[in-house]
Amino acid sequence: MKIGFIGLGHMGTGMAARLLEAGHEVTVYNRTSAKTAVLTAQGASGVRSIAEACRGDAVVTMLANDDAVKEVVLGKGGILASLPKGALHVSSSTIGVTLSERLTAAHADAGLHFVAAPVFGRPDAAAAGQLFIAAAGEPSAVKAAAPILDAMGQRTFVVSETPSAANLIKLSGNFLSASVIESLGEAVALVAKAGVDPHCYIEFLTSSIFNVPVFKIYGGLIADNNFKPASFAAPLGQKDIRLTLAAADALDVPMPIANILRDRFLALMAHGGENLDWAAIGGLASIDAALASSRTAASPLRG
Amino acid sequence: MKIGFIGLGHMGTGMAARLLEAGHEVTVYNRTSAKTAVLTAQGASGVRSIAEACRGDAVVTMLANDDAVKEVVLGKGGILASLPKGALHVSSSTIGVTLSERLTAAHADAGLHFVAAPVFGRPDAAAAGQLFIAAAGEPSAVKAAAPILDAMGQRTFVVSETPSAANLIKLSGNFLSASVIESLGEAVALVAKAGVDPHCYIEFLTSSIFNVPVFKIYGGLIADNNFKPASFAAPLGQKDIRLTLAAADALDVPMPIANILRDRFLALMAHGGENLDWAAIGGLASIDAALASSRTAASPLRG
Repeated sequence: MKIGFIGLGHMGTGMAARLLEAGHEVTVYNRTSAKTAVLTAQGASGVRSIAEACRGDAVVTMLANDDAVKEVVLGKGGILASLPKGALHVSSSTIGVTLSERLTAAHADAGLHFVAAPVFGRPDAAAAGQLFIAAAGEPSAVKAAAPILDAMGQRTFVVSETPSAANLIKLSGNFLSASVIESLGEAVALVAKAGVDPHCYIEFLTSSIFNVPVFKIYGGLIADNNFKPASFAAPLGQKDIRLTLAAADALDVPMPIANILRDRFLALMAHGGENLDWAAIGGLASIDAALASSRTAASPLRG
Repeated sequence: MKIGFIGLGHMGTGMAARLLEAGHEVTVYNRTSAKTAVLTAQGASGVRSIAEACRGDAVVTMLANDDAVKEVVLGKGGILASLPKGALHVSSSTIGVTLSERLTAAHADAGLHFVAAPVFGRPDAAAAGQLFIAAAGEPSAVKAAAPILDAMGQRTFVVSETPSAANLIKLSGNFLSASVIESLGEAVALVAKAGVDPHCYIEFLTSSIFNVPVFKIYGGLIADNNFKPASFAAPLGQKDIRLTLAAADALDVPMPIANILRDRFLALMAHGGENLDWAAIGGLASIDAALASSRTAASPLRG
């Protein structure tokens, strides 16, 4: 397939590389054009406008937030204005339910296929083609997207014919991961203040009943009390909790843990954590317990 | 070894059977003596008093709560009064840090070895010898306990020389499991109210980034909205969150998610959930969202 790829951040770079490795003809665009170099070296064509990335069978977007997606899709010279009728847009960004509903309607009006296909996994999983993908859209569009999704992930779950359902599932997954981070942060603060070594503690948990990467990765960062460099930056996690709560607001679903997470991200920003990994909310319980400064020689949120 | 085993509930029965299978000579005692039948049929000697269970090299206790442990260990005709000097007591019950500290001192005063060895896993894991064990105590006592621990679990982690550290780690583990239950309950309420099938949703989560029994078991119960029979009864889970918060109080460690869990267990009891599995706190978010009654034909907390 001839595929345009827009958005070459930590995730997008790996995903676009997988499309190249699968033999697709890939055109890449990024707002900061320097980021295209690593992919053009692998055989991609780098282009200077969104329109030039929209001349194939499909375009994939992997952007940081709702505003970026609005601009790239709905803006002047954007995807809706550029993509030929009948072509496909695979939207892998983590966005809100409301925007996804708006995009679904806009693509239908423009005669375009639209699939929401948010991905689960960190940048190393993206580079290795090990992402899990939750896809939703009309069956014909999902079928057309299959070669793209197969190349980018290890497994695709078609969760609904309504694209926004996939976006909600992605948000809920990030909510669950943030809940793991917060609860691990509280547990580590508790046992560490009782004299238990945080690394031994995490080793025990993740060798026994919590033997899964989400506990290992975040438990390790919390035990190290070191949240730099950011694989998934705190402002992105904060955005996802806001979007989760916005969906909960719209549906009248009280979510007490999500409210705690909202406050944790506010506290993290207040402590200057905007450049840290989102796992840094898991360091706040130690600060509340006046523990962090005794655990590290450096600042409470060491980076 | 000649081993007494006291406490033949869902967990203790399986643990005592593993000691028998490993070739140990096992004497079993339970307050309700009828529960010894299944083990005497496997070769154990059933006895009618705690003292009779204390005539070997070691005694193992697996009891429901702090009060039962106090009575069995410190009460009239209890372990401290019965166990010969130099013998070993392995305490596998999930108890509070304060009681564990009191037991440690009392055993030392009585010239007895004491190992705290709480276990991680549900009754099926106990029966299969697949428990994970966090053990703590003086090195000589832990060494003496090794044949017992090896028979009961798939792996033992020696976490400290201070017995109460193992009890705190066990409490923190149950806090983490309860956090998983609550966060899954909130996530299921959110996506189900948006029209996503809860079973498909849990299937997706637990086939991808949350591929671990704790998410599968509790996610399945929440998706089914069916919390009977109880493998781990709600009042036991409530007790563990209370003990977690008591430890947090003593150490000045704020734990916001633990506070939410405390309230969830109170609400569960208010809804008549005392005979349900503790995973039933994961059904409360759906009740808050006025969703449960539409998801099932029966009561909101169907049993």
